[in-house]
Amino acid sequence: MTTIAVIGDGGWGTALALLLDRNGHRVRIWGAFPDYVAEVRRRRENFKFLKGVQLPDSLELTAEPEEAIRGAALLVSAVPTRFLRGVLERFASVVGPKLPVVSVTKGIEEATLWRPSQIIHAALDRHRNGGMRGRRIAVLSGPSHAEEVARRLPTTVVTASRDPALAKRIQRLFMSDRFRVYTHDDPAGVELGGALKNVIALAAGICDGLGFGDNAKAALLTRGIVEIARLGAALGARRATFHGLSGMGDLITTCISPHGRNRYVGMEIGRGRSLEEVLAGMVMVAEGVFTTRAARMLARRHGVEMPITEEVFRVLFRGKSPARAVRDLMVRGRKAESEEVR
Amino acid sequence: MTTIAVIGDGGWGTALALLLDRNGHRVRIWGAFPDYVAEVRRRRENFKFLKGVQLPDSLELTAEPEEAIRGAALLVSAVPTRFLRGVLERFASVVGPKLPVVSVTKGIEEATLWRPSQIIHAALDRHRNGGMRGRRIAVLSGPSHAEEVARRLPTTVVTASRDPALAKRIQRLFMSDRFRVYTHDDPAGVELGGALKNVIALAAGICDGLGFGDNAKAALLTRGIVEIARLGAALGARRATFHGLSGMGDLITTCISPHGRNRYVGMEIGRGRSLEEVLAGMVMVAEGVFTTRAARMLARRHGVEMPITEEVFRVLFRGKSPARAVRDLMVRGRKAESEEVR
Repeated sequence: MTTIAVIGDGGWGTALALLLDRNGHRVRIWGAFPDYVAEVRRRRENFKFLKGVQLPDSLELTAEPEEAIRGAALLVSAVPTRFLRGVLERFASVVGPKLPVVSVTKGIEEATLWRPSQIIHAALDRHRNGGMRGRRIAVLSGPSHAEEVARRLPTTVVTASRDPALAKRIQRLFMSDRFRVYTHDDPAGVELGGALKNVIALAAGICDGLGFGDNAKAALLTRGIVEIARLGAALGARRATFHGLSGMGDLITTCISPHGRNRYVGMEIGRGRSLEEVLAGMVMVAEGVFTTRAARMLARRHGVEMPITEEVFRVLFRGKSPARAVRDLMVRGRKAESEEVR
Repeated sequence: MTTIAVIGDGGWGTALALLLDRNGHRVRIWGAFPDYVAEVRRRRENFKFLKGVQLPDSLELTAEPEEAIRGAALLVSAVPTRFLRGVLERFASVVGPKLPVVSVTKGIEEATLWRPSQIIHAALDRHRNGGMRGRRIAVLSGPSHAEEVARRLPTTVVTASRDPALAKRIQRLFMSDRFRVYTHDDPAGVELGGALKNVIALAAGICDGLGFGDNAKAALLTRGIVEIARLGAALGARRATFHGLSGMGDLITTCISPHGRNRYVGMEIGRGRSLEEVLAGMVMVAEGVFTTRAARMLARRHGVEMPITEEVFRVLFRGKSPARAVRDLMVRGRKAESEEVR
């Protein structure tokens, strides 16, 4: 039995906490809002973020950083990207330099274009000499709707670290007969796949809004991963990583699910509404809208060709008609697939 | 304007003939049954295989091999795998050794385990000394439901040949603002992807029948391509090819479409029916049932690990329960994704 602290009481953090609890570990979830944490503890249900799933009594909940990590041998960081730096800085004084961290957050930080694991390093270890070098960190990602994991539907993910022993340990802790974990040694690639897929999810929504079919959707996903992998390679990741669970796998889930926010935004735009109109009617954030800007910025900085991302950007932010964008993608110069996927 | 003969009056042959006609070429479709061909010519509709799509007067139809290929500069072979050898042998005496062929058939021949392009070579050129060496042949494949191509919905495919000039010529002939064509130099990989994806489509159906979700479906597709690529590599194809349009792309279309026969068979089996029961109630053939046997045979012959294919085989032909098969897949030994997709 390992004691594990899960930082973040959203749907994904809670689903993973449940999984680890079922695997026989002692799990403590930390949430930022004491009143909400107290009510979840009382109801035994994370009624805002993982409705209808009963939390066992063995699962502990707290809003105190120190209590959350007491005796923990692993920290699971499950905080949304835009709150990540602030939250982790609250933990910097209580988390020792030896505590390994597994990040399960998907996204890119707006101001810095950093990946979640880079933010975690910086937030936890910036006051410590040589601390960033010493911290053992892993990421875990893949096609994994939280609701399905909580309902024990079969799910397969990947955990990646530069420290192979840590990846193997996380594989052992998380794996069950309903949750299969592969290890990987390219954490940057695994993280970038989870963030960049949302640009293609927007494009998939636009295709749906235009009334296109399965041929267009499948080609979009396949070609989408090619350009994501191209950018990833320029950022130091391995191309092959993007064809795995955290790249293509996650992209497929995002694009076939009828519930995705990014796909919804794309679909409404494909039907002729403007980005402002669509966003004005939404309570939650569609991460891909920002990621499109970030990906385009990174592509330009590194001289990487990303035709789909470029067209999504023009449709979202430059008022280009979706039909025209598709046409421009279809009639681009004649290419060889074999030169790009090799 | 190029004169093109399309051999085979099924849905896919007809949709491609329409596309080529719209691109300004002179196109002749050949069908095996004179009475049916005459009626299609009269009605201007391929009412059995591409219902509701009007055929322009410029599109010619014939049941005479000699008439079909008169003046043709390219032969499009669109005959289902199990009729391919017999049909092409009827053309052997009228097709000269210089006429290039593009094969658009997906499958593996049951008796020989040959790919369609190999069958075409053998059928057309076996009486000619050195003929098989001389014949220029290409394949064209990818995510492409015929109905969507006929309705001019955007579609993206790949054409592959060992002769780069032929691949580029086919790209030029077929490409339009609704039909994008990439070239490729690995015809074996392109053909194998189109055939082997049907095993994974059966597995995807089984998952649906068991009530699983998007996480399982996405992982299945991602891991499915890994083992298909492994077999492909053993058969002389390149792994990267399987991550492209003819591999993952085609697999996605097959698995997200609600209409696929292979997915249907899998779904009924996932719900608890036996293969015999399901097949007895079907008029059309589910190609993947045979391909599962062929793929397993090839995997054993070449010593390739294909865990998903093996479990599909056991469920279809050995009476194994689908739930048990999934469990066995989930709890296999712990693996590294990075070692396999590299």
